[in-house]
Amino acid sequence: MKHFTQKDILEAEKGFRRDFVNCLSGYKSLNLIGTIHAETKKTNLAPFSQVFHIGASPPLVGILFRPHSVERHTLENILQSKCFTLNHVTETFYKAAHHSSARWKDSEFAATGLKEEYIDGFKAPYVAASPLKIGCSLADVLTLAINETVLVIGSVEHVYLEEAALGEDGFIDLEKLGTVTSSGIDSYHLGKKLARLTYAKPDQPVKEI
Amino acid sequence: MKHFTQKDILEAEKGFRRDFVNCLSGYKSLNLIGTIHAETKKTNLAPFSQVFHIGASPPLVGILFRPHSVERHTLENILQSKCFTLNHVTETFYKAAHHSSARWKDSEFAATGLKEEYIDGFKAPYVAASPLKIGCSLADVLTLAINETVLVIGSVEHVYLEEAALGEDGFIDLEKLGTVTSSGIDSYHLGKKLARLTYAKPDQPVKEI
Repeated sequence: MKHFTQKDILEAEKGFRRDFVNCLSGYKSLNLIGTIHAETKKTNLAPFSQVFHIGASPPLVGILFRPHSVERHTLENILQSKCFTLNHVTETFYKAAHHSSARWKDSEFAATGLKEEYIDGFKAPYVAASPLKIGCSLADVLTLAINETVLVIGSVEHVYLEEAALGEDGFIDLEKLGTVTSSGIDSYHLGKKLARLTYAKPDQPVKEI
Repeated sequence: MKHFTQKDILEAEKGFRRDFVNCLSGYKSLNLIGTIHAETKKTNLAPFSQVFHIGASPPLVGILFRPHSVERHTLENILQSKCFTLNHVTETFYKAAHHSSARWKDSEFAATGLKEEYIDGFKAPYVAASPLKIGCSLADVLTLAINETVLVIGSVEHVYLEEAALGEDGFIDLEKLGTVTSSGIDSYHLGKKLARLTYAKPDQPVKEI
């Protein structure tokens, strides 16, 4: 096994360090975040791989924003309009999703050809092609003292998904949706199912569902 | 598309809601967390899918702990011993990893047959079979006011990985490692690579690396 100490990581070339550390956690939850400026109505779209579950009741999601990055338009729009959308990415449009991370002058929807969609009066734009879309209202914002990273907490107001992927028990089959996962800063993958496993108990072997 | 409002989610049966909301973010970063009680030396192992990148310089990772859950031994050990390990899970032992989430009386290492390993004097136990292991010291702890979820921030002190998976640019090939990703609360998947994409610029098409 190759060993890196923190000192090795800190002394590595910047690009190496960024790729390496971004890969450490494993596969990540890739979502396109759609926002709109409340006054100019200019829309914004950007890929995020730092989206995570915070709670089910009430349903809450968290997103981490690095300070002073290109993602700032998304954060500014969320803070100002108090809403945003999360949109799963599929194989069909993951390259357009990646391209939306560039420093475009105009809306990333128009620039990348991803069509924006407005549903049920929700202010922020969804990605029309996405098979699972979530409309969130801003619930809380925290700045992490340790490195100025901003944690946005969203309250799940609406979920739209392709019905064929939804099980009776509430499970959503990401492979049926075609959801893409990312690793590091530039690698994209589909999922290849191993199994669903029964609730773990000490006195029983784990079984496949 | 099937539509769920927040009211629909809140009024759904508890098990449905838990599965449904846990699936929303997409594929998750699965890691086994290894800890040790500083006094009794009893070890603990538990699977976590809420592990994420907080920063590269210094290298920081975040983990979310639900309040009052079976994960509390892990959190208590981290708060007391100030260290923990993160260990990628492979197809070979993902069922044992899942089984470690049961309410065992003794150490989950002994209970599931996953061998613990101590390297370079680090106090917390690693999972011997894991192809990528991270030794972290406790850097910060925050309780999210919104739902009492606890955010633990770890400083990456050591990384051990199979050298064949490491690229010259710092990229770690998770498929070479055999890293497993999870979705919802009980589904496990391998990754199936689509592509790595070049840094996105407005005036250039996205290309595969």
